[in-house]
Amino acid sequence: MSKVYHHPVQIYYEDTDHSGVVYHPNFLKYFERAREHVIDSNRLATLWQEKGLGFAVYKANLTFQDGVEFAEICDVRTTYQFDGKYKTVWRQELWRPDGTRAAVIADIEMVCLDKNKQLQPIPEEILTPLKAGE
Amino acid sequence: MSKVYHHPVQIYYEDTDHSGVVYHPNFLKYFERAREHVIDSNRLATLWQEKGLGFAVYKANLTFQDGVEFAEICDVRTTYQFDGKYKTVWRQELWRPDGTRAAVIADIEMVCLDKNKQLQPIPEEILTPLKAGE
Amino acid sequence: MSKVYHHPVQIYYEDTDHSGVVYHPNFLKYFERAREHVIDSNRLATLWQEKGLGFAVYKANLTFQDGVEFAEICDVRTTYQFDGKYKTVWRQELWRPDGTRAAVIADIEMVCLDKNKQLQPIPEEILTPLKAGE
Amino acid sequence: MSKVYHHPVQIYYEDTDHSGVVYHPNFLKYFERAREHVIDSNRLATLWQEKGLGFAVYKANLTFQDGVEFAEICDVRTTYQFDGKYKTVWRQELWRPDGTRAAVIADIEMVCLDKNKQLQPIPEEILTPLKAGE
Repeated sequence: MSKVYHHPVQIYYEDTDHSGVVYHPNFLKYFERAREHVIDSNRLATLWQEKGLGFAVYKANLTFQDGVEFAEICDVRTTYQFDGKYKTVWRQELWRPDGTRAAVIADIEMVCLDKNKQLQPIPEEILTPLKAGE
Repeated sequence: MSKVYHHPVQIYYEDTDHSGVVYHPNFLKYFERAREHVIDSNRLATLWQEKGLGFAVYKANLTFQDGVEFAEICDVRTTYQFDGKYKTVWRQELWRPDGTRAAVIADIEMVCLDKNKQLQPIPEEILTPLKAGE
Repeated sequence: MSKVYHHPVQIYYEDTDHSGVVYHPNFLKYFERAREHVIDSNRLATLWQEKGLGFAVYKANLTFQDGVEFAEICDVRTTYQFDGKYKTVWRQELWRPDGTRAAVIADIEMVCLDKNKQLQPIPEEILTPLKAGE
Repeated sequence: MSKVYHHPVQIYYEDTDHSGVVYHPNFLKYFERAREHVIDSNRLATLWQEKGLGFAVYKANLTFQDGVEFAEICDVRTTYQFDGKYKTVWRQELWRPDGTRAAVIADIEMVCLDKNKQLQPIPEEILTPLKAGE
């Protein structure tokens, strides 16, 4: 398993709903932002433009333990590992500023797809740096 | 388990991302819209205004099987059951217009919270109609 | 100027923010949904897939007069006209269920772009039905 | 008029649509994030919790000049001034990394509302620091 990567997320108006806390689907956005920083967004952009390859979430298991409020600056903690040559498995947690436990926990499985939405092995240019960081 | 409820979702520009298909967190939005129609949005609004009670997703397990494209009118199929007096458990699937399997499958657990984010039993005014439809 | 087109929009959790009303950028989403129904989403999808042509908002002037709340079913009222062969000009208003004035008013200018983001005349397959409805 | 404030915005999957560029309503989100950093999010949170006062966009005039793509790190440039004791007027521009002109330009008018959505003068705790930065 990789080391723990940290990514900060500030909660804006856009993130909340009328119940006063973050609207639950938005956590999937934060987790994706964090993964993009681990993988490197420019590497992803190049892979898409040059080879038509992208990553897709195949499974996401989420547990929502605590509400998160406007103006909080949270910490997304990410680790990953490989499961064969097609799948990466991510554990991601969002922690509130003074949290004593994760507010949201996610187990995410990602696969690589070509432009015809066919499964492809994780490409070398992503695999190598991720393996090095594992 | 309840009967199957159907809720149509049309895919607009706002729903897609630059890979050409629906951005994965958005499916959680569609599933919530469908649940609100089963429970009745006005009943939810009243419960929130008069008693400060709302529903929150506690767990969501999602499987993304197929990409969904712009302009498609999809069918969200929802069933639910009760698990004790605190929890409702929902099975929800999104089907594409000519799908031979669900494009996305979700198992969702919901709980009722008061304004202090404390767990409350499912209130009568929601429980009774849901039990009737079960 | 065209006749007035009506498009209903129900306000869900996803639409609101922690101030208790609809988050202001979302009105641009509703106005776009309404325009897509006037133009016909399938016609737009075909135009994109077959000719690589799409529509882009060039200008949007918005006035937000009243907050809109959860569970309300609003009415988006749309009219349009042409301004030369490159530009369509839309007047769109969102009305609350018992509104005595529009809650939000928008004047929108749209243009047609090819995949290289170059300006193109409004294509025949859109122009003709829109002219007929004007 | 105030000095120019800079706020970086990275474009993620969530920001784009199937045409390959940022979905236009999202620019209103970025402009709001930038304003919150100028005003100070914690100050806004306190004002809301303690006095029930918040800011609302009253008018927004937007011009979309260039598409913005995935993985770009853009610069939101913000200036503001006062227009009487009720209104702040903001000029905001989003610049792409190598842009020779603003990709999107916005003129925004904001007002302060209480929990009953009644207009209030800009409160001292916001006015004073903004006046100092003007």
